[in-house]
Amino acid sequence: MIIWSSLSKLEKKTALSRPAMANSQQLKQTVGDIIASVESKGDAAVIDFTRKFDYPDLQSLVLSQENIDTLASSVTAEVAGAIDIAFNNIKAFHDAQLPSDIALTTTPGVNCELRFTPLDAVGLYIPGGSAPLPSTVLMLGVPALVAGCDNKLLCTPPNKQGLIAPEIAYAARKCGIEAIYLCGGAQAIAAMALGTDTIPQVDKIFGPGNSFVTEAKQQVSLRADGAAIDMPAGPSEVLVLADEFADAEFVASDLLSQAEHGPDSQAILVSNSEALIESAKAAVERQLSTLSRADIARPAMENARYILADSIDDAILVSNAYAPEHLIVQIEDARSLLPKIKYAGSIFLGPWSPESAGDYASGTNHVLPTYGYAKNYSSLGLLDFMRRYTIQELSADGMRNLGPAIMALASAEGLDAHEQAVALRMQKLANANDKGDA
Amino acid sequence: MIIWSSLSKLEKKTALSRPAMANSQQLKQTVGDIIASVESKGDAAVIDFTRKFDYPDLQSLVLSQENIDTLASSVTAEVAGAIDIAFNNIKAFHDAQLPSDIALTTTPGVNCELRFTPLDAVGLYIPGGSAPLPSTVLMLGVPALVAGCDNKLLCTPPNKQGLIAPEIAYAARKCGIEAIYLCGGAQAIAAMALGTDTIPQVDKIFGPGNSFVTEAKQQVSLRADGAAIDMPAGPSEVLVLADEFADAEFVASDLLSQAEHGPDSQAILVSNSEALIESAKAAVERQLSTLSRADIARPAMENARYILADSIDDAILVSNAYAPEHLIVQIEDARSLLPKIKYAGSIFLGPWSPESAGDYASGTNHVLPTYGYAKNYSSLGLLDFMRRYTIQELSADGMRNLGPAIMALASAEGLDAHEQAVALRMQKLANANDKGDA
Ligand SMILES: [Zn+2]
Ligand SMILES: [Zn+2]
Repeated sequence: MIIWSSLSKLEKKTALSRPAMANSQQLKQTVGDIIASVESKGDAAVIDFTRKFDYPDLQSLVLSQENIDTLASSVTAEVAGAIDIAFNNIKAFHDAQLPSDIALTTTPGVNCELRFTPLDAVGLYIPGGSAPLPSTVLMLGVPALVAGCDNKLLCTPPNKQGLIAPEIAYAARKCGIEAIYLCGGAQAIAAMALGTDTIPQVDKIFGPGNSFVTEAKQQVSLRADGAAIDMPAGPSEVLVLADEFADAEFVASDLLSQAEHGPDSQAILVSNSEALIESAKAAVERQLSTLSRADIARPAMENARYILADSIDDAILVSNAYAPEHLIVQIEDARSLLPKIKYAGSIFLGPWSPESAGDYASGTNHVLPTYGYAKNYSSLGLLDFMRRYTIQELSADGMRNLGPAIMALASAEGLDAHEQAVALRMQKLANANDKGDA
Repeated sequence: MIIWSSLSKLEKKTALSRPAMANSQQLKQTVGDIIASVESKGDAAVIDFTRKFDYPDLQSLVLSQENIDTLASSVTAEVAGAIDIAFNNIKAFHDAQLPSDIALTTTPGVNCELRFTPLDAVGLYIPGGSAPLPSTVLMLGVPALVAGCDNKLLCTPPNKQGLIAPEIAYAARKCGIEAIYLCGGAQAIAAMALGTDTIPQVDKIFGPGNSFVTEAKQQVSLRADGAAIDMPAGPSEVLVLADEFADAEFVASDLLSQAEHGPDSQAILVSNSEALIESAKAAVERQLSTLSRADIARPAMENARYILADSIDDAILVSNAYAPEHLIVQIEDARSLLPKIKYAGSIFLGPWSPESAGDYASGTNHVLPTYGYAKNYSSLGLLDFMRRYTIQELSADGMRNLGPAIMALASAEGLDAHEQAVALRMQKLANANDKGDA
């Protein structure tokens, strides 16, 4: 247990430090080579890499509609029902985010507009691994559906049967995803960013992944002929704020939920109650032994931090300094603390709001800024699947009214041609006026 | 003149190609060294670079409030009035973009919220150079003001007197900018991203600049301890769509407005009328000779492209393929073409809407996606100065209602601890119920 008030400034910083991210020259080089290979050889390179890393017998990158349908139909009724509930909640919450276009007359005759429009083509990346991630399909696919993106494609590595998990197929079909491609890793990111004969080039790439995927997303986002990406990545994390009234078993289960995401997951408990911290620690030990993913959660919990703060206000300051991806507040009257909370990707209020709720089904998006990015990046939302552009239209009167100010500013900035573009127009209007008067 | 329909697919691509951007290993290294120097030596490094590049006698990085006031007061009444008009229009248009928070009950007892909040600290970069850029101060400062960012700081290189242009001071004061620092280039970007004793660390950096500034913004945006940035940069550009009814002098003045921004500016005219193209070319020659910045505009115009399309619809297809930063539509009933226009940073409709209007005073933001980024990035707006986070709160009933779906999904993804976090809560509720029944 860390006693916050006893720490020096530097020790406080260390207590809230995050693990270094894989960022080696070696990784950059490997990923750069994969991207170059996909750029020059297209589909052939993507197929080669997929045969090498995922499924040796791969024939086609395309998962056929027939296969998608068969797989989707094989989902159990219980899981299909749960996906349906999650889909409905996520859709409702993202429907509510649909923005309104703006039209405003700023000066008589000067009409300015801001319009929102969906991105044309979006690439959704779903990692493979030990268990399927239908929830991530929903978190990326539902906002793409609600935004109205014309072309929603999904890349995910094939499993041992050369197919994908039925749950992924079911969730993708619900989101109206137009195509599923059987590839993963940096090669999938490169294919979506640059396009191949089979895989269309997309405008923006979304989704989590390992260090190869993360590095590939970064590299393609720096290319003008590449693709935009959702947000910078980092290991997942939770900070739980709890007081003496919190249920230690709930607290422990929330810390462990985070820990089972990966050995580099960060789980932090901050409390003003030493007793709560001690019982949460004990509960963690008890619960940990029952988990199927204990081998993943245990190393993460070895790096967990239990911080005793002098007061609830101090505990909130610790959270603000950390800027957690997930912030769970198990304190009496949790909502009353909101004005003091500065940074978090998503805030879970009260005893009945575990991280699991937001991960799966409450309706909020589970793609959130990690690694301190909650200070300057947003939770994923509908707006990330749209872009904004402006329109302006001046009438002759608008030009008459605003022309002199534009000319004065252009002149102050030494931009003659800008001034002239207005002067010529003002002159034509003056001439027309003279003629009208004559 | 390029006859579009006569071109092969490859020739079309070449006809719309953009100039390569400075991206050398040398540039990366130089900028990396500057950032490293600012990181290790702080203010001393920033002062050293500023003395070397901008003003040898620099004593302090801070422009005093007294100096700001004196400078601001020395602006001519005409320019001050023009800045006031531009400020009011830009403020009105960005006020209109203020988003509404969302609160939604997705399932009975499950409350989801999305909240918008201003970024805390933003760094606005204003380049130096031959002429002052008060308009850019407004385009960055007004949305920061409207968003409610607590800490708005501005970096700009000192001029030959060790001060800044009066117009910059005046515009900055209007926007309520808290501090102005006398530094430019990569060193200013590094100082804002990492913080020094004098210059506070910011969450996000906005503004245009030369290749050093652009590279520095990119490098700090890749660091987790750095800062977010507004958007990727590229040379400025305009595409003018014009028909036989367009005024060739207006068209020429709009192409030249773009050209005088810099020798790498792109100016493209696309028309279905050969006569219009010929008269616009002649008008360009006439107007060019009168410009004070002809030495900048001439090389840009040497790279200008005049494209003859078979029809207005074809001309729009050319524009959509190019995805221009500025799109000026001087075609009869220009507004009726909007549904066909796919990509542009900002669209200027009709004969009375020159690029100058949006650059300075109509109210729209002049920071726009260049270099084809109009396909997947947004025009700068109020939302770029805010971030979004979510909140969720389940009541006991919410947990009862949603718990089974969450458990089914967690189980399908093999995440036991996530399932357990819900199971423990459901159990507690069941126990309480039993007691209530007893
Ligand atoms: Zn989780
Ligand atoms: Zn301009």
